[in-house]
Amino acid sequence: MSGWVKIVGLGPGNEGFVTPDVRDVIATATDIVGYIPYVARIAPREGLRLHATDNRVEIDRAAHALEMAAEGRRVAVVSSGDPGVFAMASAVFEAMEDRADWQTLPVSVLPGITAMLAAAARAGAPLGHDFAAINLSDNLKPFALVEKRIRLAAQADFAMAFYNPRSKSRPHQFERVLEILRDECEPARLIIFARAVSTSDENIICVPLSEATPEMADMRTVVIVGNSATRRVGPHIYTPRRA
Amino acid sequence: MSGWVKIVGLGPGNEGFVTPDVRDVIATATDIVGYIPYVARIAPREGLRLHATDNRVEIDRAAHALEMAAEGRRVAVVSSGDPGVFAMASAVFEAMEDRADWQTLPVSVLPGITAMLAAAARAGAPLGHDFAAINLSDNLKPFALVEKRIRLAAQADFAMAFYNPRSKSRPHQFERVLEILRDECEPARLIIFARAVSTSDENIICVPLSEATPEMADMRTVVIVGNSATRRVGPHIYTPRRA
Repeated sequence: MSGWVKIVGLGPGNEGFVTPDVRDVIATATDIVGYIPYVARIAPREGLRLHATDNRVEIDRAAHALEMAAEGRRVAVVSSGDPGVFAMASAVFEAMEDRADWQTLPVSVLPGITAMLAAAARAGAPLGHDFAAINLSDNLKPFALVEKRIRLAAQADFAMAFYNPRSKSRPHQFERVLEILRDECEPARLIIFARAVSTSDENIICVPLSEATPEMADMRTVVIVGNSATRRVGPHIYTPRRA
Repeated sequence: MSGWVKIVGLGPGNEGFVTPDVRDVIATATDIVGYIPYVARIAPREGLRLHATDNRVEIDRAAHALEMAAEGRRVAVVSSGDPGVFAMASAVFEAMEDRADWQTLPVSVLPGITAMLAAAARAGAPLGHDFAAINLSDNLKPFALVEKRIRLAAQADFAMAFYNPRSKSRPHQFERVLEILRDECEPARLIIFARAVSTSDENIICVPLSEATPEMADMRTVVIVGNSATRRVGPHIYTPRRA
């Protein structure tokens, strides 16, 4: 029996966003590995083992998946959104670094609907032109690098999507992010706070930068900042193609 | 009968990437509007009208969709990839600008798997950390703005994804893009050329920047440039989470 690891994206919450290819992987897996709330989205069935682990143990979880595949198990690593965007795919490849035998296992990635694109679709098309995606968490990188990237992205007039904008352990940094944006952008710049997009808790608000406050973001929010041309038309927010 | 416009993403080609929500829209639409090769992906059925148009008429196509919705038709505007990423969603909102009556129509966007994320998944996880998405076409914006954005994105050490890198009408600009990258990045920087991703014509190559040539890109290619930490592990290419 030959094992594999397939790293799959479940999308942001709505089951209607899960692709048929991802469903097929889940149907043929012997083991599901992932963060507790994502594993909770998988329907139990006979013979399927569920391995749900807490946050911040991504490398251990990845190593466990590879270890099981080496033993012949068919392992689906589940991420919310797209596994290649601030999610489990990079962690699995990192875990592979020190083990040459793991590097020859069949490991593949299946894309999913990532949160920023689900949020953008609900708002209209704020990422309809050039944009940057930035993870605001400084768990794994210095916050100075986050600040530098936001400043240069604003100077390039990219629209921006921020993942992990604010958490209980990092309540103050998002205030700093808003300060940088106020330095670089005009007060009328549109900013969208999309919380729990595509779930029953979904809440999407759009305000000018001058009215944005840190409390509008939490760990379930993706934040989209328009570029200088992003505008409203009727109830929609979009970025024109010529900007 | 009340009409609507739903702007949906068909993903980059593989039918297994089309979400159930998008399938539902296609199943309930009375009219399909889009660029010829995308409309060709929709199975004909009785009562379904297919309106396939050529490239570069996005605004006319969008206006036609809104006009039919105003007459009570249920119109699916189909894009390849995600409609909100360099695709039809922004064009529909632009077409709405001059017609207040169109701004109150039920218009919504349903996300899809965009080409850069399908390409990234096939390569490993090169967009696994902060990145920028840039449309290299200067049909609608000056090429100087493209150049500026690439330069600033490189200085911010973003990974980058380029859409529409090269076409028959713009054969020389991609050479200029490679020059800018060579100014700003080290020769070993990894660059991925992903052509026709997820179709039977798929071809993905990865070379160091020093070996990249303009001919590696065409209009069916999405180009991914790693950041300074992007690396190979076994057959995979990924960007670590701490970079």
